[in-house]
Amino acid sequence: MNVVALAGGVGGAKLADGLARNLQAGSLTVIVNSGDDFDHLGLRVCPDLDTICYTLAGLANPDTGWGRAGETWHAMDSLKQLGGPTWFRLGDHDLGTHLERTRLLAEGLTLSQVTESFCERWGIKHRILPMSNDRTPTIVHTDVGQLAFQDYFVNQKCQPQVIGFQFNNIESAQPAPGVLESLIDANVLIICPSNPWVSIDPILSVPGIKETILDRLDRLLVIAVSPIIAGAAVKGPAAKMYSELGIDPSALNVARHYGSQKNGGLLTGYVFDVLDRDQENDIEALGLSTLMTNTVMKFDADRIKLAKEVLRFTKSSLN
Amino acid sequence: MNVVALAGGVGGAKLADGLARNLQAGSLTVIVNSGDDFDHLGLRVCPDLDTICYTLAGLANPDTGWGRAGETWHAMDSLKQLGGPTWFRLGDHDLGTHLERTRLLAEGLTLSQVTESFCERWGIKHRILPMSNDRTPTIVHTDVGQLAFQDYFVNQKCQPQVIGFQFNNIESAQPAPGVLESLIDANVLIICPSNPWVSIDPILSVPGIKETILDRLDRLLVIAVSPIIAGAAVKGPAAKMYSELGIDPSALNVARHYGSQKNGGLLTGYVFDVLDRDQENDIEALGLSTLMTNTVMKFDADRIKLAKEVLRFTKSSLN
Repeated sequence: MNVVALAGGVGGAKLADGLARNLQAGSLTVIVNSGDDFDHLGLRVCPDLDTICYTLAGLANPDTGWGRAGETWHAMDSLKQLGGPTWFRLGDHDLGTHLERTRLLAEGLTLSQVTESFCERWGIKHRILPMSNDRTPTIVHTDVGQLAFQDYFVNQKCQPQVIGFQFNNIESAQPAPGVLESLIDANVLIICPSNPWVSIDPILSVPGIKETILDRLDRLLVIAVSPIIAGAAVKGPAAKMYSELGIDPSALNVARHYGSQKNGGLLTGYVFDVLDRDQENDIEALGLSTLMTNTVMKFDADRIKLAKEVLRFTKSSLN
Repeated sequence: MNVVALAGGVGGAKLADGLARNLQAGSLTVIVNSGDDFDHLGLRVCPDLDTICYTLAGLANPDTGWGRAGETWHAMDSLKQLGGPTWFRLGDHDLGTHLERTRLLAEGLTLSQVTESFCERWGIKHRILPMSNDRTPTIVHTDVGQLAFQDYFVNQKCQPQVIGFQFNNIESAQPAPGVLESLIDANVLIICPSNPWVSIDPILSVPGIKETILDRLDRLLVIAVSPIIAGAAVKGPAAKMYSELGIDPSALNVARHYGSQKNGGLLTGYVFDVLDRDQENDIEALGLSTLMTNTVMKFDADRIKLAKEVLRFTKSSLN
């Protein structure tokens, strides 16, 4: 089984890690949102890539899901004493990553080359690819104006009301090397329980990615796992975004967002939580095969179990 | 008494700190070598400025003299794991300084504006000025070729044999704002026990600085404190440099290096260690008034005591 996962932040990282632990080394490719990337304090910061990498490397902070385990904050303390900007907190271990990435990018390496090198150093046995080596910063249109994603997400704590999204320069962006190839080689594509608007949509908007998936529908199972459980997101602003866009935040509406292949959309199957049992009929009515299970991944064991179930679900569909 | 001190690294920082603790707030200006400054990992690193500032702020590592007390090295550990360059070690607290300085310089502030802001934040009661806001990187000519200063000093541990020095762009550099004014307002100039070749000479080579001192000789006492004690430097390569340049490393030869005002040089007085008692007559024969005392500054009390003695020595000369 060749599996590709699309993933963004913490929820996506957890399922990707579960998949990585259930799959043979090298049989998983994780394509990661790079629309959240930004330059901060002169450093290239790639929050989603780092969350995925740290998680798969076993380096992630188990309490927050992002950042590093055993992190310290001395550089930030020092910066704060000097009156510098501390709204986006970079831990000391984490700073090493940004410093080295920034250095290698300045030397002319691409983001995917840097990521490959880091994954090897961190002992990650599967492939992690940024969606693109081109910069496609996500802009959030809100009631207080257009905000750069990290400004909206971290600085303003997702408080502004969302009107829409824009992925700058996306039309001219190219998929990173390996992205389209991995989709062509895959027989299973799993859309992780990441934010559909700002984690998965940017990936699907890179020219060529969605087209390659749609071209391969006869040979590619596409399964999404709902990031919405009982009307709420486990983490992050996905549910709030749905509400502000006038859409009821529900597992059903995430399924509609990606669409069923039966109706010109992407999905063949859908995984959602038992708490959303009442939506089962409506989801199946979209033409999707379904897996209803516990999808909250609190502990390591949860992500391994959910990934195992998702893989079993796809296998049963493959046969 | 208005005092200006010229200083470079650890030895200079210690005496500057002693002076700061003995003088009324605001009556000391320290002009610091910025020829060691370099860009590393995308950050502007100013080793001498930071050593002086950390020391006067009470933040310096008492064991090394440079870097921060209670420093941690998590960013470097992380960088090392990724295969990044770790020959120049930046501690986590220290990184906060470089990040904020780099950010402010990128915003268009000058190095002296950044330094002023940092000193205020760190509660430093005296003025610390880089010699120049222009970049004048020190190059060390050696038997293995021309080396950037930090490459020679840190990476190659001062092992190459020195042939000479070059201060790039020094002819077109301007003294930082306040430098010439502080010299004009001063009645005492103290050349700290810093490396004459690579700490003090760069300062004196910025066009206007030496000239202003020489213009003011009738109203300005110029006292140097020898960094060479019993033929050796307390720290750093000063003695090794003297030897490699074919000059006996001695307190006497440092005095000759700066020269006596009686012979067209800079100095009116000279402070050297009791261990160099045998050179007293030769030093006085240069036309210098002298203070022979214990000049090793191991503990805080030593720097306060030496500074007090130096100030008393200059006062006796002023009267």
